[in-house]
Amino acid sequence: MTASSRPAFHLRLNLDDEAAIGPGKADLLQAIAETGSISGAGRRLRMSYRRAWQLVEALNLDFGGDVVETLAGGKGGGGARLTDRGNRILACYRRIQLSCAKAIASDLTALKKLRTKR
Amino acid sequence: MTASSRPAFHLRLNLDDEAAIGPGKADLLQAIAETGSISGAGRRLRMSYRRAWQLVEALNLDFGGDVVETLAGGKGGGGARLTDRGNRILACYRRIQLSCAKAIASDLTALKKLRTKR
Repeated sequence: MTASSRPAFHLRLNLDDEAAIGPGKADLLQAIAETGSISGAGRRLRMSYRRAWQLVEALNLDFGGDVVETLAGGKGGGGARLTDRGNRILACYRRIQLSCAKAIASDLTALKKLRTKR
Repeated sequence: MTASSRPAFHLRLNLDDEAAIGPGKADLLQAIAETGSISGAGRRLRMSYRRAWQLVEALNLDFGGDVVETLAGGKGGGGARLTDRGNRILACYRRIQLSCAKAIASDLTALKKLRTKR
């Protein structure tokens, strides 16, 4: 058996019947914070610019206000950054991921032991 | 705001690069245990018989052995039940769900408070 390159789990948080945040949106927020632009974040995550924009718009809609703000002017539209709210959302999601990882670690090991070696 | 009818989170566990188990497969295992057949489980979950069978085959493959066993004969193919391994997998997934729910509850409430009332 080879080690998995996927994370051990995928956790999507449902805010209501329509709004949700999972690792994809969280990774996008982090990449925007680190690259300073939506296009740069999309490139890092191998995501089309269109897809990255759609996710940003979904985040802004889901949280009822600015999560990412775009900066006017310059080449490539002037860049983008997380608002204070966006930073807090990202930090909160990462805390939740970590809490979940710790809470499930031993049972996840037990679950994997229920597999027959192949 | 109306209350969500979706569960608060969706947790998929990645066993390796290909195998995974999430709430859909867990609910299917539970429905097979409770209805005594794959077709009955599919009906309860509003899932096609074909889809239910595909998920059962994926589970049997992912865990490297029988998770669900079908019983020969009778109308509707004689029914199905979880093997001992299947029961342990289901119980383990439910424990993990519960551990996760407890671990993330307070941060999930905090995350929801980062939304602007709409």
